[in-house]
Amino acid sequence: MRLVVIGGVAAGMSAAARAKRLDPSLEVVVCEKGPHPTYGACGLPYLLGGRVRDFGQLIVRDQAAWRATGIDVRTGTEVIAIQHARRSVRLSNGEEIGYDKLLVATGALPQLPQPIVTSAGPAFALHRVADMLRLREHLDAAATPGKALIAGGSYLALETAEALRARGWQVCLAHSGRDLLRREDAWLTARLEAHLARCRVEVRHGARVDRPDPAFDLTLFATGLRPNTGLASDAGLRLGRSGAIEVDNRMETATPGILAAGDCAETTHVVTGRPVWAPLGTTANKMGRIAGATAAGRRERFPGVAGTSITRICGLAAGVTGFSAAHARREGFDPVEAAIEAPANRARYFRSRPIAVQLVADRRSGRLVGGAVLGDSGVAGRLNAIATALTARLTVDEFSQLDLAYAPPYSTVWDPLLVAAQQLLHWL
Amino acid sequence: MRLVVIGGVAAGMSAAARAKRLDPSLEVVVCEKGPHPTYGACGLPYLLGGRVRDFGQLIVRDQAAWRATGIDVRTGTEVIAIQHARRSVRLSNGEEIGYDKLLVATGALPQLPQPIVTSAGPAFALHRVADMLRLREHLDAAATPGKALIAGGSYLALETAEALRARGWQVCLAHSGRDLLRREDAWLTARLEAHLARCRVEVRHGARVDRPDPAFDLTLFATGLRPNTGLASDAGLRLGRSGAIEVDNRMETATPGILAAGDCAETTHVVTGRPVWAPLGTTANKMGRIAGATAAGRRERFPGVAGTSITRICGLAAGVTGFSAAHARREGFDPVEAAIEAPANRARYFRSRPIAVQLVADRRSGRLVGGAVLGDSGVAGRLNAIATALTARLTVDEFSQLDLAYAPPYSTVWDPLLVAAQQLLHWL
Repeated sequence: MRLVVIGGVAAGMSAAARAKRLDPSLEVVVCEKGPHPTYGACGLPYLLGGRVRDFGQLIVRDQAAWRATGIDVRTGTEVIAIQHARRSVRLSNGEEIGYDKLLVATGALPQLPQPIVTSAGPAFALHRVADMLRLREHLDAAATPGKALIAGGSYLALETAEALRARGWQVCLAHSGRDLLRREDAWLTARLEAHLARCRVEVRHGARVDRPDPAFDLTLFATGLRPNTGLASDAGLRLGRSGAIEVDNRMETATPGILAAGDCAETTHVVTGRPVWAPLGTTANKMGRIAGATAAGRRERFPGVAGTSITRICGLAAGVTGFSAAHARREGFDPVEAAIEAPANRARYFRSRPIAVQLVADRRSGRLVGGAVLGDSGVAGRLNAIATALTARLTVDEFSQLDLAYAPPYSTVWDPLLVAAQQLLHWL
Repeated sequence: MRLVVIGGVAAGMSAAARAKRLDPSLEVVVCEKGPHPTYGACGLPYLLGGRVRDFGQLIVRDQAAWRATGIDVRTGTEVIAIQHARRSVRLSNGEEIGYDKLLVATGALPQLPQPIVTSAGPAFALHRVADMLRLREHLDAAATPGKALIAGGSYLALETAEALRARGWQVCLAHSGRDLLRREDAWLTARLEAHLARCRVEVRHGARVDRPDPAFDLTLFATGLRPNTGLASDAGLRLGRSGAIEVDNRMETATPGILAAGDCAETTHVVTGRPVWAPLGTTANKMGRIAGATAAGRRERFPGVAGTSITRICGLAAGVTGFSAAHARREGFDPVEAAIEAPANRARYFRSRPIAVQLVADRRSGRLVGGAVLGDSGVAGRLNAIATALTARLTVDEFSQLDLAYAPPYSTVWDPLLVAAQQLLHWL
C-alpha cells in the first residue's frame, strides 16, 4: 500500500509522520515542490526582524531526518496532475508515481496583483521562504532605513510591520478593508490602530494597493491567501462554498481514495457546525494528523476549529476566537457584546499591565460565541479559556462562574475574563 | 429590611456590596472582628518578602470608602452569639443587632499547636495580618539572616519559604504529610521538591512540628486551616461532612433566613457534583457575590469549584485543578494519568522555557478529571483551559483537539496541553 502526499509543509508532513507511525508497512511518498520539507512558516516574519538569525532555525526536521523515519520525502518535486482513474500523480519532470491513497496538502497561495509591477520601485510578496530571504537581503543592503508601504491588514502584515519598525524603517500599512486582522470588529480595529499609532505605524483604511507606490522605498504585499486548489479542481475534487476542498471530519474528500488537509481544505467551525476555511499552521497540523490516521486505517475525527488566532504587534499580544458581533450576526446569531479594559492583569505589586477583554454572546441561547483579548502578557492563556468554552458550548452564565487560577503574580481576584462575562450578563 | 454580615473580608464584603447594589433600600451592617475590612489576604506572604512594602497596599477599600457606599461596616466588632429565635446577634460589648437576614462569613482559622510554646525560640503563626506584621518586624530586626523552620507544605508555607529565601534566610520546610500543596500526587511533589532543592530549601516529609525547634532561629506555623464554625454550630446551623457549614447553591443554610459563604462554608466540586470544602480567596469572593444576590432577593446559583489553585515558589509557577489520580480514585473514578515535560513553552527564538503538564482522566467515561501545570510562564492560562474543560465535562479526546492560540512568542504549534492529552489518549 502506498500513500502519496502532495505538499510537504505542515499538513503534509504531519500526515506522513502519523500514517507511517501507525502503519509502518505503509509506503509513504511526499512530493514537495519547494526545497524544504516542513519548516515553521509562522516564524518567517521573525526572520525579517532578526530574532530568527538563520532560516535553519525554522527547520524542524531536515530531509535526512525525515528519510530516517522511513518516509520518502522528495523536495523539488512538483506534481502537475492527479490522474485518479490511473491512481497516479504526474510530476513536472514527466515521471508518474502510483498511489493507493492520495493526500492533497497543497496549502494556500498569496493573493497578489499579477504581475507585481516593479518598475515603480522594489516590491516583494511575503509568502514563500524565498520571498522572505530576498526581502531580508534587500533590507540588509539598504544603507539607511527607509519608508515601507505594507499592503494588507492581516496578522502577516502586522507582524511584518513590527519587524520593519524594529529595523528602524518608517511603516505605512494600507489595506483595502475597514478592519484589521480580517475581523469585522470596530472595537478590535480601534484598539489595534491606537497601538500601531503609538508604535508609529500609520494605518490607511480602504486603500487598495495594486502596484508599488513611488512615495515609498519599498512595497510589500501581504494581501491575503486563497486555497491552492488547482490540482484538486482539475482532478474533479469537490470544492466547498469557501473555495477550499470539501472534506469530512476524517479528511476524506468526496472522491474515494483521496484525502485533503491543511490550508487547501475546508474544516468545520465548532461554534456553528458549518464549513469554514481557516488557513493556519496549527489547524493544518491537526488536520494532517487526522488525515494520517485515516490513511493508516484508523478512525479519528477532527471536530473543527474555534477560529482562534493570536499575533504580536509591536509587543502587544492580540488574539481572537469565535466570532465578532458583526460576524456572529451574519452567522444567524443575535449577538450582544461586552468589552472591558481591565487596569491590571495581575496584582499591582507584580508590575501589572492593562488587559482588554471582549466577549460576544448569542442572546437567544445565552451561549458565548466569540471573544478577543489584547494586552502585554496573559493573553494567550485567557484566549484559550474562551476557545475551550466555545468548543464546550458554555453559556455566559457558566463562563462567568469559572474557577480560574488566582495568585497575585498571575491574576487578579476577579479575573478580567470573569469581569467581562459579568458585564455581558447584563445584556442577556 | 436589614442584612447583618458576620465577617468583613472576602465573602462578607462581596456579599454586602452586591446586596446593597442590587437593593439600595436594604440596610447592610457588617461586623468585622479585626481592624480592617476586606484586604488582599493572598498578598500577605509578599509583605514578608518585601514586594509589598506596606500593608496599606493590600487594602482594596478602606472603611470610609465602604461607608460611602451606604454599607455600615463596623470593624473591631466581634459577634459572640447568633440568637436566631430573636433574629439578632450579640456582640462582645453586650450590644445586640437585630436582622432580617444573616450571612455567616466567619472564614477559617489556622490549625496551630495550642498554645504555641515560645520558650524554645521565637515562633509565629501565619494567618492574621497582625501575625505577618509582627513576623516582618522580627525579620527586619535580625542583624543577619538566620535559619528558619517552616511547618507546613501548603501554598502558604511555600510562598513564605520564597519570601524568607529572598531575605537571605536558610529555610527548612517540615510537614507531616508526604505530599506538597495538599495534593496526593507523587509526580507534583517530586517536581516541587526538586525545584525547592535548586532554591536551597530543604524539605522534610512526615515531620510534625509541635513546638519551636531550638536548632532554628525562627519557627513558623503554616499548618493548615479549619472552617471557623463556632458561632454557626452553637446556633444549630447544619455542618457538612467536611466540617464546614452546609449551604445550597444560593448560599442558604438549612436554617431559613441564614446564609453562609466563604471559607466557613462548603461548596460543590464541579467534577463530582459533591460537597467540598475549598477555602480560597477567589471562591470566597464568588460565594459572597451569590450570597449578596440571594439576600437582595435575586435568584443566582453558584455551580461550585473545580479545585483550581496556583502559587509561585521561588519563581516557579505551580498550579493544579480537579483531582490528582490518587484523589480521583478515592472519588470513585478509574483514573489514568499522563505527564509530559515539554522542552519549550514557546518558540526557541523567544527564549523558551520548559513547562510540565500532567492530565488525569477517568477511564470509564473518558472525561478529563484533573491536571497540573508547572513552569516559568504561561502556567495560569493553561491551567484555566483545563479548569474550563473540567467544568464543561470535556473528554480527553475533545480536549486533545482544542483550537488553542498559537504564535511563536506565545506557544508551540502543538501546545503542551495538547501533547499531554495525546499521550493520555494512549491509556484510554
